[in-house]
Amino acid sequence: MPYFRPEIEAMAGYVPGEQPQTGKFIKLNTNENPYPPSPKVVRAIQQAAEAALMRYPDPMGNAFRDRAADILGVQRDWILCGNGSDDILTIVTRAFAGVGQRLRLPYPSYILYRTLAQLQGAVWEEVRFNDDWSLPPEFAAVVPDLKLVFLPNPNSPTGTVVSRDTIRELAEQLPCPLLVDEAYVDFADENCVGLVAQNERIMVSRTLSKSYALAGLRFGYLVAQPHLIEQLIKVKDSYNCDALSIAGATAAIDDQAWLAETTAKIRQTRGRLAEGLASLGFSVPPSQANFVWCTHPNRSAVTIYEQLKQNRVLVRYMNYPGWGDGLRISVGSDQQIEALLALLKAMV
Amino acid sequence: MPYFRPEIEAMAGYVPGEQPQTGKFIKLNTNENPYPPSPKVVRAIQQAAEAALMRYPDPMGNAFRDRAADILGVQRDWILCGNGSDDILTIVTRAFAGVGQRLRLPYPSYILYRTLAQLQGAVWEEVRFNDDWSLPPEFAAVVPDLKLVFLPNPNSPTGTVVSRDTIRELAEQLPCPLLVDEAYVDFADENCVGLVAQNERIMVSRTLSKSYALAGLRFGYLVAQPHLIEQLIKVKDSYNCDALSIAGATAAIDDQAWLAETTAKIRQTRGRLAEGLASLGFSVPPSQANFVWCTHPNRSAVTIYEQLKQNRVLVRYMNYPGWGDGLRISVGSDQQIEALLALLKAMV
Repeated sequence: MPYFRPEIEAMAGYVPGEQPQTGKFIKLNTNENPYPPSPKVVRAIQQAAEAALMRYPDPMGNAFRDRAADILGVQRDWILCGNGSDDILTIVTRAFAGVGQRLRLPYPSYILYRTLAQLQGAVWEEVRFNDDWSLPPEFAAVVPDLKLVFLPNPNSPTGTVVSRDTIRELAEQLPCPLLVDEAYVDFADENCVGLVAQNERIMVSRTLSKSYALAGLRFGYLVAQPHLIEQLIKVKDSYNCDALSIAGATAAIDDQAWLAETTAKIRQTRGRLAEGLASLGFSVPPSQANFVWCTHPNRSAVTIYEQLKQNRVLVRYMNYPGWGDGLRISVGSDQQIEALLALLKAMV
Repeated sequence: MPYFRPEIEAMAGYVPGEQPQTGKFIKLNTNENPYPPSPKVVRAIQQAAEAALMRYPDPMGNAFRDRAADILGVQRDWILCGNGSDDILTIVTRAFAGVGQRLRLPYPSYILYRTLAQLQGAVWEEVRFNDDWSLPPEFAAVVPDLKLVFLPNPNSPTGTVVSRDTIRELAEQLPCPLLVDEAYVDFADENCVGLVAQNERIMVSRTLSKSYALAGLRFGYLVAQPHLIEQLIKVKDSYNCDALSIAGATAAIDDQAWLAETTAKIRQTRGRLAEGLASLGFSVPPSQANFVWCTHPNRSAVTIYEQLKQNRVLVRYMNYPGWGDGLRISVGSDQQIEALLALLKAMV
């Protein structure tokens, strides 16, 4: 079968977290929100479904852009809508990184960045976090053909953050765009949207999957300077967002009260989860996301994962070669987290 | 601004047909369906919106795959779901065509194929249709680095078709995959799905945008042999289709009675449109799509387009360098087509 590009045949492909389509699980493995989205989102979608599905959607999703621009304090043309933030990451990678060129990412971080580099035939270099979850100076190093740097902040799988001031300095040193992936930022103390106007190399991506409880909707967006957005539009599919997701996303970002209430609950439960894990002997880095990373000094992470799964609780087991393995546990409802902690208590 | 890949900066970007977000137009420019989708689709979406939007969708859209497989007479693993068939075309192009490699397409045809080639840094060669809308032998020529051939069938902008037998022979001669883009096939007399099992190089893409009246939903799919689908899965975004579109698409393909009724009406109106245009002196190739292509021997196409637009009727003006210009007119309702013909009668 010589048809495919050799890169494609060689690669393993990104494997998303398990999405059991049947059976009843306490699902704490893909950082979904335990609470339903704003009822206004559901109503907006139901109305859009009756409106005009036979028509193409607005190619730019301007209804969303306008509402998001108001909330973020930018103009419409600073925003690009995506079919989930994975679509944004794909667009950005395709726009900046050619064959054999270089991408940089921290290690460990979101596995998808590597997959996107592979698909482009690009080279990626991973720079390990320091033990205190800060970035070493190599992360800002200028090397030939460096075309794009990814920085998930808060990071996955650790939930840890790099400060806004550090990111501003990092972008000043880098010769290429820096994509700050803020998928989890609504659970954190600060964000980098304000930096985008200060440095054209800083771009910020967001998703509605986590904090807005809309993983099923596939909607994300990028904030970048307008002259960058203009080029990125060429790379996206013409109608990358459908009429229902534009309507739902617009209603979602409009309901900031719902967001504030839900993220406050999750942050509170995150504290209980982290404390509970620590009291069972787990090591838990400080998380500003809707999940925590944990390892246990004398219990195998994969065994815990499997035992939890047998008990109908799904967490994410992750193994990073050369760095170690552990469990990434999404912050569910208080009740779900209590059930998890009770099971863990019996195991460790 | 040296950040972008040079291909991106150099390209013009694909321009989709006008989608006026305000004002009342008779919209005959982007081959949308004049009839609403099946009411079962709307109900399925409304239910899905209430179900579990906080959860990620099924990454493979298996509910749709199973129902489509039944209808097409294949197995689930012969089908890949896409965020519109543009997503399918993107996935296929990225999987097969590397930098400097070659794609082939007929001329004139769907402009997006060129854009996809440009995004990959690939080379494209356009082979002109014969005057009778058949393909010349060069279309089957074996040349070095030919990696993918696109054949829209029915073709856009002409609505003309190449027979299934010709396509079978073409694929036997070609050294690479042949993507038969059947976006409009539900309005035609025959299709190529049955050929996929006969030759692994034949792949068929479909969309629900036109015949199922779901342009706003963004849903398309590919039929190909399973060992090809397996590789293509690596290229797609993990969750490329959202929960609402999977639910809506599954309900849509399940309602074959609705499809039969609607496409029959459109085919009937297409006949009236083609006859009406011919009686006004237009030249109209035989169309098996939900649009017709027309040119007038002594009237400027762009002038007609502009005059129609002033009268709140949108058609698509297209200009193919070296080949000619003309109007592509979508088949609307009988009433819309009567309004159009009355306006044209006053103009020519």
